[in-house]
Amino acid sequence: MIGRRLDVGILGSTGSVGQSFVAALADHPWFRVTWVAADERWVGRRYRDVASWRMSSPLPPAVAGLELQRSEPAGAPRLVFSGLDAAVAGDVETAFAAAGHVVLGNAGSHRMDDDVPRLVPEINPEHLALLERQAKVRRWPGRIVCGANGPTVVLAMVLAPLRRFGLRSVTVSTLQPIAGAGYPGVPALDIVGNVVPFIPGEEERVEDETRRVLGLFKKGKVAPHGVRISAQTTRVPVVHGHTALVSVAFESQPSLDDVRAAFTGFSGRPQAERLPSAPRRPLIYLDEPDRPQPRLDLDRGMSVLIGNLRRCPVLDCKFVALGNEVVRGAAGGALLSAELLSVDGLVQGGRPKRRARRGSAASR
Amino acid sequence: MIGRRLDVGILGSTGSVGQSFVAALADHPWFRVTWVAADERWVGRRYRDVASWRMSSPLPPAVAGLELQRSEPAGAPRLVFSGLDAAVAGDVETAFAAAGHVVLGNAGSHRMDDDVPRLVPEINPEHLALLERQAKVRRWPGRIVCGANGPTVVLAMVLAPLRRFGLRSVTVSTLQPIAGAGYPGVPALDIVGNVVPFIPGEEERVEDETRRVLGLFKKGKVAPHGVRISAQTTRVPVVHGHTALVSVAFESQPSLDDVRAAFTGFSGRPQAERLPSAPRRPLIYLDEPDRPQPRLDLDRGMSVLIGNLRRCPVLDCKFVALGNEVVRGAAGGALLSAELLSVDGLVQGGRPKRRARRGSAASR
Amino acid sequence: MIGRRLDVGILGSTGSVGQSFVAALADHPWFRVTWVAADERWVGRRYRDVASWRMSSPLPPAVAGLELQRSEPAGAPRLVFSGLDAAVAGDVETAFAAAGHVVLGNAGSHRMDDDVPRLVPEINPEHLALLERQAKVRRWPGRIVCGANGPTVVLAMVLAPLRRFGLRSVTVSTLQPIAGAGYPGVPALDIVGNVVPFIPGEEERVEDETRRVLGLFKKGKVAPHGVRISAQTTRVPVVHGHTALVSVAFESQPSLDDVRAAFTGFSGRPQAERLPSAPRRPLIYLDEPDRPQPRLDLDRGMSVLIGNLRRCPVLDCKFVALGNEVVRGAAGGALLSAELLSVDGLVQGGRPKRRARRGSAASR
Amino acid sequence: MIGRRLDVGILGSTGSVGQSFVAALADHPWFRVTWVAADERWVGRRYRDVASWRMSSPLPPAVAGLELQRSEPAGAPRLVFSGLDAAVAGDVETAFAAAGHVVLGNAGSHRMDDDVPRLVPEINPEHLALLERQAKVRRWPGRIVCGANGPTVVLAMVLAPLRRFGLRSVTVSTLQPIAGAGYPGVPALDIVGNVVPFIPGEEERVEDETRRVLGLFKKGKVAPHGVRISAQTTRVPVVHGHTALVSVAFESQPSLDDVRAAFTGFSGRPQAERLPSAPRRPLIYLDEPDRPQPRLDLDRGMSVLIGNLRRCPVLDCKFVALGNEVVRGAAGGALLSAELLSVDGLVQGGRPKRRARRGSAASR
Repeated sequence: MIGRRLDVGILGSTGSVGQSFVAALADHPWFRVTWVAADERWVGRRYRDVASWRMSSPLPPAVAGLELQRSEPAGAPRLVFSGLDAAVAGDVETAFAAAGHVVLGNAGSHRMDDDVPRLVPEINPEHLALLERQAKVRRWPGRIVCGANGPTVVLAMVLAPLRRFGLRSVTVSTLQPIAGAGYPGVPALDIVGNVVPFIPGEEERVEDETRRVLGLFKKGKVAPHGVRISAQTTRVPVVHGHTALVSVAFESQPSLDDVRAAFTGFSGRPQAERLPSAPRRPLIYLDEPDRPQPRLDLDRGMSVLIGNLRRCPVLDCKFVALGNEVVRGAAGGALLSAELLSVDGLVQGGRPKRRARRGSAASR
Repeated sequence: MIGRRLDVGILGSTGSVGQSFVAALADHPWFRVTWVAADERWVGRRYRDVASWRMSSPLPPAVAGLELQRSEPAGAPRLVFSGLDAAVAGDVETAFAAAGHVVLGNAGSHRMDDDVPRLVPEINPEHLALLERQAKVRRWPGRIVCGANGPTVVLAMVLAPLRRFGLRSVTVSTLQPIAGAGYPGVPALDIVGNVVPFIPGEEERVEDETRRVLGLFKKGKVAPHGVRISAQTTRVPVVHGHTALVSVAFESQPSLDDVRAAFTGFSGRPQAERLPSAPRRPLIYLDEPDRPQPRLDLDRGMSVLIGNLRRCPVLDCKFVALGNEVVRGAAGGALLSAELLSVDGLVQGGRPKRRARRGSAASR
Repeated sequence: MIGRRLDVGILGSTGSVGQSFVAALADHPWFRVTWVAADERWVGRRYRDVASWRMSSPLPPAVAGLELQRSEPAGAPRLVFSGLDAAVAGDVETAFAAAGHVVLGNAGSHRMDDDVPRLVPEINPEHLALLERQAKVRRWPGRIVCGANGPTVVLAMVLAPLRRFGLRSVTVSTLQPIAGAGYPGVPALDIVGNVVPFIPGEEERVEDETRRVLGLFKKGKVAPHGVRISAQTTRVPVVHGHTALVSVAFESQPSLDDVRAAFTGFSGRPQAERLPSAPRRPLIYLDEPDRPQPRLDLDRGMSVLIGNLRRCPVLDCKFVALGNEVVRGAAGGALLSAELLSVDGLVQGGRPKRRARRGSAASR
Repeated sequence: MIGRRLDVGILGSTGSVGQSFVAALADHPWFRVTWVAADERWVGRRYRDVASWRMSSPLPPAVAGLELQRSEPAGAPRLVFSGLDAAVAGDVETAFAAAGHVVLGNAGSHRMDDDVPRLVPEINPEHLALLERQAKVRRWPGRIVCGANGPTVVLAMVLAPLRRFGLRSVTVSTLQPIAGAGYPGVPALDIVGNVVPFIPGEEERVEDETRRVLGLFKKGKVAPHGVRISAQTTRVPVVHGHTALVSVAFESQPSLDDVRAAFTGFSGRPQAERLPSAPRRPLIYLDEPDRPQPRLDLDRGMSVLIGNLRRCPVLDCKFVALGNEVVRGAAGGALLSAELLSVDGLVQGGRPKRRARRGSAASR
């Protein structure tokens, strides 16, 4: 059965995001990492000798011994996850797509590209239809699919089931973790015992991306959702977990019970397809008024947690949301996307037969 | 000149708020602490032997040797600051007022009392007119004046100069410090590396108190301001400083420059009267987009700091505010109030002559 | 097979240590929690309604619905884990032993009792022979067995394999976590951004207990080991994990390789008996010079981690050690002790047959 | 009087150490900053436009407007403080000395130079005699004087008065602050909620430098003190303040009272000369057993704090020490050194006459 797993590669494999891909793909029932690329100067050395491993799970032995490759398509598997920094990701990922690879790309590097889906599998699987346009416009045999940035994923996940009530306006204040800035990322002197109330470009990113993720695919393109969003983004001395304080105004007048039911009943294609990384419940509502909290509630994998739903004196209702920046926001999101691509036949070769796909890496 | 200073007392003097009164009153040009009260079991012992001093400035020698008194009016000076917990403050403070004392009371213990001013001297000095009604209704020779709770003071201070534009709606997310919960206060296990997105009763407190502080005094009472306020209050692992993320919608359409000018031009009676504890500029606007920050900007004493003013896609404008929970919020606020009472002749005896009152404890 | 599990009870089940017992016993192959006791005022209520669950794993459903019992022996299972505070533990635990129960007691409450083993199963299983004396002296049908306090366990574990070189002197500086002080434990104001260089009584406790744990059982009692130990104990703003900086002087002159080999080769009865909670390797040596670290290395369960072994210019060698205060220090230690008691036939009833005992809760 | 102040310059003025020099020199009675140098690319721009000011005191206006200079001697004042990184400091500082400047250099860059005094003014002012040899060997008209690294200064300060008892052996465990690593320094991901038990090269540095600082000047050179020192150095999530856990063994047998008296009676030339930056008491002993603590006791300026002196079961006595890494360790130390050089006539020009030198920047 192991022999049937699809070979996958990782660009930028030794960095912070790259390592989280390596960790997330350990023991994956459908995929196995056989190709890891890194900066020119490390090419030819073993992964374990170059990567300064910082994940809390052990470095998978099958990857530890791999030889680091050039960031070039020749010899790479068809499916490639990219942990490259936004600054360099664009050109490299484009080169891979041009050479026929399916690339799960860095969200930041294709922000302006209308034909690159920003896929959050529970929310907008229909955006994958953009790939036809991408193939036509770009004239390339490969594909690029992106996720969204951590706080966007958390916000979009909790807004998705509320679209039925007519989203009118949303305010969100984020308390973002230091892990969200990568490594070395935030200097300790800036954040220990402190709040940094500004993250360059982040507010606009959250506002624009969320509308894009929630948008409808029609006539060959994605029309951003019309909801007005105002974000205030801060960094706090927390290691993991984006906390979002959200207020929403609706077109219709749902009761708090309606809203809560929309959260708890939310489900999408990852659940319907029983993808290996899909959380059973994408949104979990916690009843205690002082939850969710980063230190207590982040062991729920890819689920986004919600709590303290109540009336808002200015908009209609308000609540707290929490999601893991790595498990849900970056590596985990890309992995779930890859599983969806696989089920949809967009990644050829080695894909397990449908109907026999549920594996051991089941969600929590 | 020292001999002319007014004797003052402190209720709950050994606790966290009481200690901050002792520290704030050290070297005060108008007042000197001559009477300190504490729990029954400590009566008769020296202040220094009972108080486990936790302030960063040294324990003033003049207080260190004072003998702790019963929390009873007999023998206490006319002006008394109360550092009592809300749970016990009400009865004791009432007893002192009934015996003719002027009490700067715990905000929490008189929340429901319409005739107790919640004084923020820059904002609502006219609320002191309530004291006449208080005297009449309560039939007592003393007076009780309260401040407001930390996040309320920060919010009210930044909204006060915006009243001219017609405050319609306000959303505020607070990131509150552990010092705001007193001592022992928050267990370390609850907050280290964590965000607690809920503080019992705090949202309603901020919403109601702010409207009260901003309200107009007419026909013998204070009518709360009509602005709609929605607060989301959180605790973060920061020692000092309430950070508030604020959005405001106005009746009129001020430009951002108008709003900024309203902030920087704000001034009140403490400044006009040149009260010893009055900050020269009650509101300071910082130009760097990533300021104010608790660890870098809290050395401005009683000034509230504002930064990153920008358009809000949902309301009209948004910005970040920061204030020191002790210096501005509790002890400092009460001290400034006492100075105003003194200037207004509400605290008899030993008050320095007007025109000669600016002392050495000048604000920064 | 489930039917064969031994019923066990938990005293002080709703507190911080009690909850860690509940969590540690979830899915245990040999034991199942059927009896939980709490303070008088909660008796008769459901566990889930009283315990404010703070563990990161979910509350086991089988315990959630249990009705809280009085802290009295009647109706309790024979084997009882005690999460009671030292202040009240002594009398209650004594009452249970007098009524025939085997109690895994609070280390603090029997510190002065020569006939109560301080069991660290890898180190001193032979101390269980004290139980005969205990039975004789106390004239009771039950037994009390204790563990040791967190930093003691870490220190004793790393010194145990070095006894062969003749332990002469040991200095240890500990950097202890806030979780080690229980809940509510340390006030956040005392420890956020701070070091507290003093923990009342802790130095003497570490020095005395370590000698006791390492001591030899002869002639019916335990003679404390003769090594001289000097401890300096501090609290740091870390949630989990005791870090210990250790220097050791020996009678003989082992090389650093000898010392490292003693660490990595260390093993005891839990390993020989393959107890379900036994770590495969009680001591793990990490090669990177900057390890072990609390945030990166605490997922090794009951193993104690060691790193940076080097020559000491004053004593002979020095190194860093790290252990989890809950997993190794309290609940986990008691559980491993209970497993050893079970294998030795000291806990009757329901014990799995020898040779068939390795279960699914295998160590990491 | 202001007109008499000596012009001084700062190399590496915009960095973390450079900024602390600017802050420490604000309002200095003897010196004024008139020359600031920075990296080539910033030359010609104003200090305020380049330095991202991170000190908690405001940027002094007199420096804010200075134009940044090349790191070359031409045009620089005779006395120059160096905030350059060790990596580049050596060559630049050497060039300045060769051109006749007196350089207060980076401790790290002249570690191997026997003829560069590592001056801690209270401890070893006689080491300045090395400057004659430096002039002779180097054949330059200028001078280089260095301080020591933060934890070394703390340790050397507490050991200095104990030399009289015959220092035999010392063990020290340090808990070092993130500010000690400069800016950006330690990545937040490495230290938030964590202990890093290893700082590259730091142990040897503390051991060697401390012996050097405590050494005797004889026959034209400094002979390191013969005490054996063993250091274990860690980084903890504390912003400011080196905590050191120290044990000492003596040749003689002083009582604890003798040791305490040696601490409290310690004084040196900075005190005798009443240098403006000299703390009145270089060592302060705190009686509470749980002090000193970084968050509570760092407002004592250049004093090093000591507490919890007690018997050590392995060496002779042990205690806790605390010093501010900036105020005592880097900028403050260099400033005190410059004041001593000034009094000794080693910095010509503008020096205030002896007997009239005590200014307003008096120590606390």
